[in-house]
Amino acid sequence: MTSNKSKWESIQQKINIVIYGTSTPAGRLFDLVLLGVILLSVILVMLETVQGFDAKYHDEIILLEWIITFFFTIEYVFRIIALKKPWKYIFSFYGIIDLIAVLPMYLSLFLTGTSVLTIIRAFRLIRLFKILNHPQFTGQSIHLIDALYASRGRIFVFIYFVLISTVFVGSLMYVIEGPENGFTSIPTSIYWTIVTLTTVGYGDISPGTPLGQFLASFVMILGYGIIAVPTGIITSEIALNSKKGDTKPKQHPCSNCGIEGHQNNASFCFNCGSELNDE
Amino acid sequence: MTSNKSKWESIQQKINIVIYGTSTPAGRLFDLVLLGVILLSVILVMLETVQGFDAKYHDEIILLEWIITFFFTIEYVFRIIALKKPWKYIFSFYGIIDLIAVLPMYLSLFLTGTSVLTIIRAFRLIRLFKILNHPQFTGQSIHLIDALYASRGRIFVFIYFVLISTVFVGSLMYVIEGPENGFTSIPTSIYWTIVTLTTVGYGDISPGTPLGQFLASFVMILGYGIIAVPTGIITSEIALNSKKGDTKPKQHPCSNCGIEGHQNNASFCFNCGSELNDE
Amino acid sequence: MTSNKSKWESIQQKINIVIYGTSTPAGRLFDLVLLGVILLSVILVMLETVQGFDAKYHDEIILLEWIITFFFTIEYVFRIIALKKPWKYIFSFYGIIDLIAVLPMYLSLFLTGTSVLTIIRAFRLIRLFKILNHPQFTGQSIHLIDALYASRGRIFVFIYFVLISTVFVGSLMYVIEGPENGFTSIPTSIYWTIVTLTTVGYGDISPGTPLGQFLASFVMILGYGIIAVPTGIITSEIALNSKKGDTKPKQHPCSNCGIEGHQNNASFCFNCGSELNDE
Amino acid sequence: MTSNKSKWESIQQKINIVIYGTSTPAGRLFDLVLLGVILLSVILVMLETVQGFDAKYHDEIILLEWIITFFFTIEYVFRIIALKKPWKYIFSFYGIIDLIAVLPMYLSLFLTGTSVLTIIRAFRLIRLFKILNHPQFTGQSIHLIDALYASRGRIFVFIYFVLISTVFVGSLMYVIEGPENGFTSIPTSIYWTIVTLTTVGYGDISPGTPLGQFLASFVMILGYGIIAVPTGIITSEIALNSKKGDTKPKQHPCSNCGIEGHQNNASFCFNCGSELNDE
Repeated sequence: MTSNKSKWESIQQKINIVIYGTSTPAGRLFDLVLLGVILLSVILVMLETVQGFDAKYHDEIILLEWIITFFFTIEYVFRIIALKKPWKYIFSFYGIIDLIAVLPMYLSLFLTGTSVLTIIRAFRLIRLFKILNHPQFTGQSIHLIDALYASRGRIFVFIYFVLISTVFVGSLMYVIEGPENGFTSIPTSIYWTIVTLTTVGYGDISPGTPLGQFLASFVMILGYGIIAVPTGIITSEIALNSKKGDTKPKQHPCSNCGIEGHQNNASFCFNCGSELNDE
Repeated sequence: MTSNKSKWESIQQKINIVIYGTSTPAGRLFDLVLLGVILLSVILVMLETVQGFDAKYHDEIILLEWIITFFFTIEYVFRIIALKKPWKYIFSFYGIIDLIAVLPMYLSLFLTGTSVLTIIRAFRLIRLFKILNHPQFTGQSIHLIDALYASRGRIFVFIYFVLISTVFVGSLMYVIEGPENGFTSIPTSIYWTIVTLTTVGYGDISPGTPLGQFLASFVMILGYGIIAVPTGIITSEIALNSKKGDTKPKQHPCSNCGIEGHQNNASFCFNCGSELNDE
Repeated sequence: MTSNKSKWESIQQKINIVIYGTSTPAGRLFDLVLLGVILLSVILVMLETVQGFDAKYHDEIILLEWIITFFFTIEYVFRIIALKKPWKYIFSFYGIIDLIAVLPMYLSLFLTGTSVLTIIRAFRLIRLFKILNHPQFTGQSIHLIDALYASRGRIFVFIYFVLISTVFVGSLMYVIEGPENGFTSIPTSIYWTIVTLTTVGYGDISPGTPLGQFLASFVMILGYGIIAVPTGIITSEIALNSKKGDTKPKQHPCSNCGIEGHQNNASFCFNCGSELNDE
Repeated sequence: MTSNKSKWESIQQKINIVIYGTSTPAGRLFDLVLLGVILLSVILVMLETVQGFDAKYHDEIILLEWIITFFFTIEYVFRIIALKKPWKYIFSFYGIIDLIAVLPMYLSLFLTGTSVLTIIRAFRLIRLFKILNHPQFTGQSIHLIDALYASRGRIFVFIYFVLISTVFVGSLMYVIEGPENGFTSIPTSIYWTIVTLTTVGYGDISPGTPLGQFLASFVMILGYGIIAVPTGIITSEIALNSKKGDTKPKQHPCSNCGIEGHQNNASFCFNCGSELNDE
């Protein structure tokens, strides 16, 4: 019985190394194959919506999607088996993504039109960052996220003011231009204001009266100028962060619960408390 | 008589705490409810202009707008009652906004088409910053405004040169392209130049002649390049400000006159001179 | 004879103070009136091209333009009279602008269609900077120009690479999309590439084939990314300049030859060598 | 025999000075003429695709293209003759470009439609940087490339997240808007998302439903905000580099093998090992 249990533990550990490991050849190979399959699966869902392509290769696409779904299902089961405390993984961000990546195909057996939901598999592409688990690389990402996080207050103030402004300008343009120039309602006018302020400028709605064009010009110059504000905020944060020097993060997933995203200086998993090995 | 007066003062103080206070539970609740009502009121005015929605729910919208208007009227009266020297509030930025937020609905009884003016209530959303009266938060906003204020000279020079340039390019395009390609007049051509220079590019007017397309290409590359100028100005200002360290602002509204926007180190209201308490 | 000459010199000096002075009340008033007249003149030329407006007020516009032309002519003559060595002014940037600001109207007596050239008067609006001759203000402008000048090498390299890229992408799109999708020739395709790369996006020409849309997406992301390059160049220059501290420039025009643009530490006019007074 | 060989070496050296030299008058003249011919050749290929122009001057264009092709062929042969170890040049970046700049015209004798490939000659315009071989100038370019190279990690993370996001938003818009509003397939929807996120905004596809317009507004504000990220990355890199001071690069091409791109402090050619002279 004990030998039986230890044999099970031995199998469990081997699966763990292949699935969660990133430094062993087997672990790296598995990650690369997985990424390839995810990418293929995303491309398949896209092609399925292209009329001409789907008409020709409908059966082949469906077959391939089922094969990928089975592969993902097995992978999901193995991910659970490989862990001692699988619940942590199941309810983690990655665990939920992995589950809803396989559900839509099974649902499509009972409900039509759900197969398009398989596009949610694209979220699994974030796993690339696990594969690229190089200190210099993850350090770069953390810098970026830190800079964005540190600027959240000022960015919120900026967006709030921009939104209040779009309500005003939108209402004003609705009054000036009116439904005959495409400004059919205030929400539509606000949509136009955002299209203009962000310098997108579709041209599906554009001002027709001289006064409207004058106000639009003002909004454009404003939009052109205020783009400097978020840029300035984030640039100064990144510049400050860059001076602090590069730190080498330790971000291996916990071998116990599979959770990722540990602090650089963490020695224990923040989720299950087991010691983090450097692999 | 004295007890009557002191009773009145006691009521006045209670209203003051609810309306102007931000640190007591009652004060915070009032602010949150107020913000919600303002938001609801802005959404209502928007929906009123949507054809299909208004046709269905016209009576409900009008009813709700009247309820909100009564709520705002009572709030406005209470804001005046709660202060010892109400004139300061009445002629302040917030006081005027609060008044013109209720007027359009009453006017709409006599004049048609004025109900759209109630959109001015969106300005009341700026009160959010009073509710978010957290030192770190207001500090961020002040940094932003300081950086913009410090750069005003250079930004003015920049915009002035951009405007002179648009007059020239607009005139040149009018001569090159002419009315047959949509450049019906110099003001229209200037409008096109601003649309192009700011990289909005509606496409309602676009050059048709090779020479016009060449000049347009030049304007686009110019516009693409000079966007760097305001960004550079503001970024360097924000970067300089960031180094000066965060300051904890003291920005409670005066309990006497209700005015806001005090300096960080102010001990007395700059408006009525009464001492500022830290609440 | 001597008294006659000294009388003439006295008149000359008085005119000089009014026209070239910026610190006396008379000098400031003259500058403000001049700026107003230039602005009015620019607006008039614009309105003349607006069909409906010109049809109604054609005679009034022409009359006003002649009055302004006479005013500018007299001003030009006085500018020459007021100087001891007028040739320096006549062949300076401002002198040439001032002359060609009046010529088109006189030319329009003999040639039709030249009155639109009076738009060149807009260049005279640059004189605003003479009026705003405040040390802090001109210092700001000099900082900006210095930063742009210091970055000229890198900006040239950047634009050169962008232009070579547009030639390639344009040719590629011409081969891929062809005339049936609006890409009628390589120059037109290059025009489209610039419209796309600078994120203007008129939509007068847009890719129709999947391969074209794929390449276009690539160009857009590239254009979105490389906008960071000029911004980075100019921002770092402005940031470096800002650290050097504000300098108080001495930029009064020379009272002898009327030339402007002296170095901050200049004691003598770089053009005629006469001593510069600080007025 | 020895004198014959030394005579040959003397000729070889003379050609070398003219073709590879940048500091002698003959070398500079050759470079300028070459650049002019390359530019002319690029313009010719462009004009050939303009219908009206080609119809008129077809024979003249073809003649000129053949003359230029012969000139480039002779130049290519001379470049090979002038070097002692020509293989290094032949398989270098410039060598390959120089070869494929002449091939398409010869190919067009046997295959129709290949003459448009001569546009690849535009790549030869990169030689301008050889002519502008000024320390200050090349130093600037190296700074730029260094800054971009140092930011490659963060820029890759950024673009990867942007691409994953476009897949999601594109799929969502396909579900919301559907083929009736122009969102015919997920790839087309992703194309629209990129057009919107990068603020290009052609308007060939634009959302028609209120929900689609709401999501589009969200994408635009996001795109407007995240443009700050690459700008921040590159700006902070350039700012860091600027502080390190300007270095004087030594970038003459190797006189032996003709290869370019040597390190600033290189004394020997990294390609063939012969000593680098400072010319």
